Amino acid sequence: MKGVTVLQSGGSNQMELADLSVPESGQDDLLIKVHSAAVNRTDIMTREGKAGYAVNPILGVEVAGTVVEAAGSGSFSAGDRVMGLVNGGGYAEYAVMPANRAMKIPDSISSAEAAAIPEVFLTAYQTLFWIGKLQKQEAVLIHAGASGVGTAAIQLAKQLSDAKVIVTAGSRRKLDFCRELGADILINYKEQSFDEEVLKATDGRGTDLILDFIGADYWDKNLASIKHEGRWVLIGVLGGSELSKVNLMPIMSKYIQLTGTLLTPRSDSYKAELSKDFAEVVTPYLEQGKIRPVVDSTFPVEKVHEAHQHMEDNQNIGKIILNIASAEA
Amino acid sequence: MKGVTVLQSGGSNQMELADLSVPESGQDDLLIKVHSAAVNRTDIMTREGKAGYAVNPILGVEVAGTVVEAAGSGSFSAGDRVMGLVNGGGYAEYAVMPANRAMKIPDSISSAEAAAIPEVFLTAYQTLFWIGKLQKQEAVLIHAGASGVGTAAIQLAKQLSDAKVIVTAGSRRKLDFCRELGADILINYKEQSFDEEVLKATDGRGTDLILDFIGADYWDKNLASIKHEGRWVLIGVLGGSELSKVNLMPIMSKYIQLTGTLLTPRSDSYKAELSKDFAEVVTPYLEQGKIRPVVDSTFPVEKVHEAHQHMEDNQNIGKIILNIASAEA
Repeated sequence: MKGVTVLQSGGSNQMELADLSVPESGQDDLLIKVHSAAVNRTDIMTREGKAGYAVNPILGVEVAGTVVEAAGSGSFSAGDRVMGLVNGGGYAEYAVMPANRAMKIPDSISSAEAAAIPEVFLTAYQTLFWIGKLQKQEAVLIHAGASGVGTAAIQLAKQLSDAKVIVTAGSRRKLDFCRELGADILINYKEQSFDEEVLKATDGRGTDLILDFIGADYWDKNLASIKHEGRWVLIGVLGGSELSKVNLMPIMSKYIQLTGTLLTPRSDSYKAELSKDFAEVVTPYLEQGKIRPVVDSTFPVEKVHEAHQHMEDNQNIGKIILNIASAEA
Repeated sequence: MKGVTVLQSGGSNQMELADLSVPESGQDDLLIKVHSAAVNRTDIMTREGKAGYAVNPILGVEVAGTVVEAAGSGSFSAGDRVMGLVNGGGYAEYAVMPANRAMKIPDSISSAEAAAIPEVFLTAYQTLFWIGKLQKQEAVLIHAGASGVGTAAIQLAKQLSDAKVIVTAGSRRKLDFCRELGADILINYKEQSFDEEVLKATDGRGTDLILDFIGADYWDKNLASIKHEGRWVLIGVLGGSELSKVNLMPIMSKYIQLTGTLLTPRSDSYKAELSKDFAEVVTPYLEQGKIRPVVDSTFPVEKVHEAHQHMEDNQNIGKIILNIASAEA
């Protein structure tokens, strides 16, 4: 089968579409014929040798496809359309997925759309609800609103919690898209001071929850934007991980809870539980079209270099998808 | 009545034992004849003009005494011995306490001992259980083990959760005392690297919970001492509040939860709920002598300057108590 491996840690030119053996699936796995895989920042970090936890030589952590072998799994049979997280190996014609984290794809959703769901929606779900404990009608500040996780988080916060959704993004085009997904307060961080806008939007109280993909660059403004006893979930450091000065007093005097998290390096059992909870709660919304995956663009797997470059250019709204089925043609 | 006020923000010589009016108690208050009040760091900060939330001109946030007037309170009558937090006004012959946060004093406990209970035990209880969610037999790292909150936390963690209690302190005398209270692992931070000792004591996993009164000075070693998904509660900055360099990556990759808290500036309703929960759970342990207040020394209120100086010298193990009743003599 065809699959994308990395010659040497480095730029996108280090990726190669190679001839590889079909992977072996174990007793508790599904072997999946992959139709679509999505590109993630973690793939770029793995390609660059910076992720530190990838063991599979084939890139890719999420797929949508059709079950080929279901081994001892009671819940799935050959022919079922499934989506979910894989432990690497996604950019390939066949991939192995632990059966207990596979999710059935609603009929109304294409494979390309389905591949856009697992990583960003599970991350947003974990962050908003498992860690962030978002309550009905609370205010949530979502940075990078037009990113993959951002677009998922806006919809989940709005549909599941009727939250006041406050987003930041760097262009009118991105903010307009966030509004279409349900965001209430749109802040262009290039033109406005987001902490001032958050305080205006919350009658001076501050936001109940922050989803922070940015890290260092937004530290002080996040501190100013959060309410007393607010929760702040750190899930990315796109704005740097090194702070040159931190004052611990406001964390103490505002009773702030700051929690760090990542999804990809989590245990198999964690991913299984999260996928199960997510599928139970969110599948009805997907079936009814109230929540929708956001696909920015689709590339044939042969153009994986361009797909990575497109993500690195930071112009995408939503997910970048690789069409794997085309590799057979 | 006699009461201690501050002439001008500054050193301990700014405190004055003045003649003042007995305070007026409202419908939901108890008027208490104060026998003993305890000295707290927050009193020193108030004296120095640094606390920022004191409104009562009389110092002191916790007392033990006898109810004089119980107004509409159903739970207390004149003559009852009570202890609890007051909103300032503790260093005086009479003090006002909201009735819903008063706690009855077990017969076996003297007034001086009872005054040593509220602030440090409620803080330790809040930090360990309400915020830190300490579970049975988890490991907890308690810095400043011989401090007021430290000595309370050691006993609560051991008696209520059978935790593995790891403490740091700066002398053999202090560590021996921590052992008597039930601490399992004793670390002299002046002679040992506490993170290495914590990892040794937890088979390399790290501690489930950290009670951090230190802040900046211990930041990096706390990060190294905590386990994956560990909880870290920041309740003091004795080692400074300014960090000159912070890397956010370990917070994210270890899924750490850092929560800041303070007790004194919390709302009346928060203090009432906390006092109620604490009294229900811990009173039996106090009655049976399984948990005991730790009194370092007692000063007559006329020697309040010496009492403050003693705390600032940092040589106390447990609480410093002012004997107020003597002011009448």
